[in-house]
Amino acid sequence: MAKAVCGFHAIEEALKAGKGGGTLYVSRSSTRIDTLVQLAEQKRISVKHEGDEALSKMAGQENEHRGAVYLQQPARRKYKDVGDFLQSLETENRQKAVVMILDGITDPQNLGAILRSADQFNVDLVVLPERRSAKLNTTVNKTSAGASAYIPVVVVKNLRRSLGELKKAGFWVYGADVQGTMLQNADFDPRSVLVMGAEGKGLSTLILEECDQVVTIPTGGHVDSLNVSVAAGIVLYELRRQE
Amino acid sequence: MAKAVCGFHAIEEALKAGKGGGTLYVSRSSTRIDTLVQLAEQKRISVKHEGDEALSKMAGQENEHRGAVYLQQPARRKYKDVGDFLQSLETENRQKAVVMILDGITDPQNLGAILRSADQFNVDLVVLPERRSAKLNTTVNKTSAGASAYIPVVVVKNLRRSLGELKKAGFWVYGADVQGTMLQNADFDPRSVLVMGAEGKGLSTLILEECDQVVTIPTGGHVDSLNVSVAAGIVLYELRRQE
Repeated sequence: MAKAVCGFHAIEEALKAGKGGGTLYVSRSSTRIDTLVQLAEQKRISVKHEGDEALSKMAGQENEHRGAVYLQQPARRKYKDVGDFLQSLETENRQKAVVMILDGITDPQNLGAILRSADQFNVDLVVLPERRSAKLNTTVNKTSAGASAYIPVVVVKNLRRSLGELKKAGFWVYGADVQGTMLQNADFDPRSVLVMGAEGKGLSTLILEECDQVVTIPTGGHVDSLNVSVAAGIVLYELRRQE
Repeated sequence: MAKAVCGFHAIEEALKAGKGGGTLYVSRSSTRIDTLVQLAEQKRISVKHEGDEALSKMAGQENEHRGAVYLQQPARRKYKDVGDFLQSLETENRQKAVVMILDGITDPQNLGAILRSADQFNVDLVVLPERRSAKLNTTVNKTSAGASAYIPVVVVKNLRRSLGELKKAGFWVYGADVQGTMLQNADFDPRSVLVMGAEGKGLSTLILEECDQVVTIPTGGHVDSLNVSVAAGIVLYELRRQE
């Protein structure tokens, strides 16, 4: 979760120490606030303008915001592999987590857009197969609007083995495909794995066999389906909506 | 709404007369059914495999499906302008309708992906401004997976005037932007206009003033926002979910 930093000096220090994460919210302009905005811009931390009321909510009851709140995003971890990720959940005693597995997303623009959504919806880990996947290159980073630098990604040789590890750690596996439960009726677990397959082809039989539930976005048009990055965004939105 | 055609000869005729709309659903393989599948493929009508139970639902209680149902999509209308669209709603006594206004979507790939989602979620009309918009070219058609041929689009000189016409006809206007009502709490009207603005910039002040409600997708990540085509897909999904 993001941490709210209030007060000119505290924000200044946090911004200076920051590594580009989080957002500086300001509700007015003053010499001090403008200094913070400039500093945030130098550090490539995004700046948003909000009303006093919104800032009060972010600051919480105990703090006065005085026109600026810095919502600090904790730096994303890097994980060696799925086992390393699961180990960190255990060490930190974190029960809730969302993992996204992308099987066969070969278009770098789609991969970038999905990583961007994964960042926006606070996905804890993205798993890519070594084969049948776009590589994390500059196109992906650009389309992800920089999110690929924040979201933890591991590349694995054997997706099925990774699924096995996750299931053993109590994760439930949801595959997005046709002929499943309507997405809005899905029953997401606090530990959820979402699997998106290749556009047009859907999930492979091997992966489908591992799914605890197949979910389907209710659509019906002249063309075949939604773009896979749009579909991934909708599934993430629905998972968060149900929380 | 799609119309279900059942029976070998009825489906054969409908497919022959068809203009590429709709989907042929088959639950098994036989000489007759395979003939229909081949015909559908020639006519570039999509074919999907579903179980007998799903086909029974499509066929309705009065019809027996015998392994094939053709869900015929009525050809999308072409409209000259917003007035022409509103006239057709009145003539056909249609109360429910969804209009999508795209203000400042200059990237053809984003426009294509949005048109594809608009088709999947059965949007009745897409309105584009003459300026500050990608043109309906081959890139758009390709990214839309062909949907741009089906979805009715009108290009207008003055977006605000179009909004005025729609509001006068009883439409409620929902703008997607920051600082609004959380999307899941939006209160969509049977006649809804959804307005999406330029990525990064959001809606213009002029358009914001015309909105009855501003809706916000609840997100929070390291980067600024979702890709605009992902955001449009999520808003359409939520609107249909609430129906």
